[in-house]
Amino acid sequence: MAITVIGSIAIDDIETPFEKTGDILGGSATYFSMAASFLTDVKIIGTVGKDFDKKHLNVFKNRSIDVKNIKTEDGKTFRWKGRYGYDMSDPETIMTELGVFSSFKPVVPHDSKNDMLFLANIDPEIQFDALKQMNSPKLSALDTMNFWIDGKKEKLINVLKLTDIFIINESEARLLTGKSSIFDCAETIFKYGAKILILKRGAYGATMFFENKFFMVPAYPLENVVDPTGAGDSFAGGFLGYMDNTGDMSFENLKKALVFGNIMASFAVEGFSVSRFLTIRMDEIKERFKKFREMTYFEELNA
Amino acid sequence: MAITVIGSIAIDDIETPFEKTGDILGGSATYFSMAASFLTDVKIIGTVGKDFDKKHLNVFKNRSIDVKNIKTEDGKTFRWKGRYGYDMSDPETIMTELGVFSSFKPVVPHDSKNDMLFLANIDPEIQFDALKQMNSPKLSALDTMNFWIDGKKEKLINVLKLTDIFIINESEARLLTGKSSIFDCAETIFKYGAKILILKRGAYGATMFFENKFFMVPAYPLENVVDPTGAGDSFAGGFLGYMDNTGDMSFENLKKALVFGNIMASFAVEGFSVSRFLTIRMDEIKERFKKFREMTYFEELNA
Repeated sequence: MAITVIGSIAIDDIETPFEKTGDILGGSATYFSMAASFLTDVKIIGTVGKDFDKKHLNVFKNRSIDVKNIKTEDGKTFRWKGRYGYDMSDPETIMTELGVFSSFKPVVPHDSKNDMLFLANIDPEIQFDALKQMNSPKLSALDTMNFWIDGKKEKLINVLKLTDIFIINESEARLLTGKSSIFDCAETIFKYGAKILILKRGAYGATMFFENKFFMVPAYPLENVVDPTGAGDSFAGGFLGYMDNTGDMSFENLKKALVFGNIMASFAVEGFSVSRFLTIRMDEIKERFKKFREMTYFEELNA
Repeated sequence: MAITVIGSIAIDDIETPFEKTGDILGGSATYFSMAASFLTDVKIIGTVGKDFDKKHLNVFKNRSIDVKNIKTEDGKTFRWKGRYGYDMSDPETIMTELGVFSSFKPVVPHDSKNDMLFLANIDPEIQFDALKQMNSPKLSALDTMNFWIDGKKEKLINVLKLTDIFIINESEARLLTGKSSIFDCAETIFKYGAKILILKRGAYGATMFFENKFFMVPAYPLENVVDPTGAGDSFAGGFLGYMDNTGDMSFENLKKALVFGNIMASFAVEGFSVSRFLTIRMDEIKERFKKFREMTYFEELNA
C-alpha cells in the first residue's frame, strides 16, 4: 500500500498583499506527498539541483516519505516566484527558472510499478512516458494546467485515455472541452477515457463525477488564508491518500476521500510552504472532517 | 400564517450573451412572492404605474398572492434594463427608470402587522419606516445592496438593529463591515443587531450564521442558466416561505429553509422573469431538495 507521485520539487518566493517570503520549499510533488503522508506511504520521483538544501529533504524524511528517487543533478533546483492579489486566487508568475527540471525524465523503479500513481502537473509527454512504465497501477490520477491544454492538448488526451482519475480546475476543464456546463465537460472528459472527474473550484470547493453520480462540497471555511500555493496538490494528496488507505472504490468512500482532499487543502493554505503539515496531527484532521460534516449536513424532508 | 413582502415590482429588459428579452415582469417583490407562494400565503406591498399590464397582475393572482396592496399610481412602472456577460454574474445596468417607485411610501395594512416580513432591497429609510408600522412581526428579514451601503450606511444599520435575519451578498457584507473574513463579517453584523446572517455567494451557494453555528451549501448545479435576475429574491422567498410554513426556529430547520432557498433560486435562473414558477409543482421542488441532499451528503468517519 503506497502512492508514488511524479512531479516538481521547487524553491518558491511568494508574495501576498499581507506578507512576503522567499526560499521556501514548494512544488507539486512536495505538497502532494506531505498531505498524503498522513494517510499512507508515499514515494516521490523527482529531481533537484545541487543547491537543494538538506534541511528540505529532512522535511520529507520526517514524515517518512521515501526520497530515494529524488535525483540530485548538476544545476539548479526549479524556482518559482509568484505574487497574489487581494482576491488570493490566481497568482501572477514573476519568475520561473526550470533548472534541472527542464531535463526531468522520471524513471519508475521496480518497487513503484504497482503503487497508486499521481501524475502531478508536468508535460503530458513525460506523464505518458511515466504511465507506460507502470505495471497496472492500483489507481492513477492526473493533474494538468492551461499551459499544457493550450500547447499539448492531443498529448494530454493520450494520457487521459490511460488514467482513472482526472483532477483539474473547473475553468481548465472548460478550456479543455470547449463546453460551458460542467455536466457537458464531464461527458466529454469521460469520452476521452477518465473514469472519475474532480473539478476544483479554488475557494469554492470541488465537484466529483463518477458513473452517473455527482457530489459537491464547498471549501472548508477559514478565518485566515496565508498562502493559496499548493492547495490543489494538497487536495489531491488528501484524496488519493484516503483512497490508498481504505482501498474502497465505492461512491460513498470516494465522497469521504474528496472531503479529506478538501481538509488537507485547508491546512495547506493556512501557512506558507508546507508549514502546517509539520505540526498538525491526525486528530486535528479528523476533527476538521467532523466539523465540516456538521457545517454541511442537513436532514431529509419529512414525508 | 403569511408573509408580507415590501419591495419593487418592475418591468425588465434583459440581455444575456445567448438571448435578449424585453417587457418582462421583474422586481424584488415579484421574485420573492412567486418563490414563497409554493410554501405559504404571501401579500405584496408595492406600487406600479398605470402602464402596468393586467396580465402581470394575473401572474400573482394565479399563485394566490394577495395583490390588494399593490397600488396603481399616476406614472410609469419601475423599469430596469440590464446586460449579463459570459460569466452570467453581476449584470451591467443599462437603464433604470424609477417611475412611481421613486415616491413609494409603503403603508402596512392592519392584516399584515403580525405577519412574517421581508424587506426587499429598497431605501433603508423606507425599510425603517415600514418596520416601525409592524406590530411585532413573527420574523423579519432584510436585504440590501452596495448602493445603500455606500450612501446610507447609518440608516441601514438602524434597520438591522430591528431585524431578525439579514440576507446579503458576501461581497456586500465585506463592504458593509470592512472585514475580509466571513466570520469577522458575521461578528460585526451580529453586533449591529441581526440574529441570523445569510451570505449569498451567487453561483457558489450560501452560508448561514446563527448563534455559534455555521452552515454552508454550494449552489444547486444546473445544466443551463438562462437569466440570473431574481435569484437572490427567489432564494429569500424559498427560505422565508419554508420558515413560515414550518414555524420551527431550530437550527436543523433553518438549514432546510436555506436549502429551499437554494432550490427556489435554481428554478428562478432557469428561465427569464418568473417563467419557471408558472409551471413547476411542489413535487419537483421536493425532488430537487432530495437530489441536492444526495449530491452533498457524505457519511461520518468510522471511529
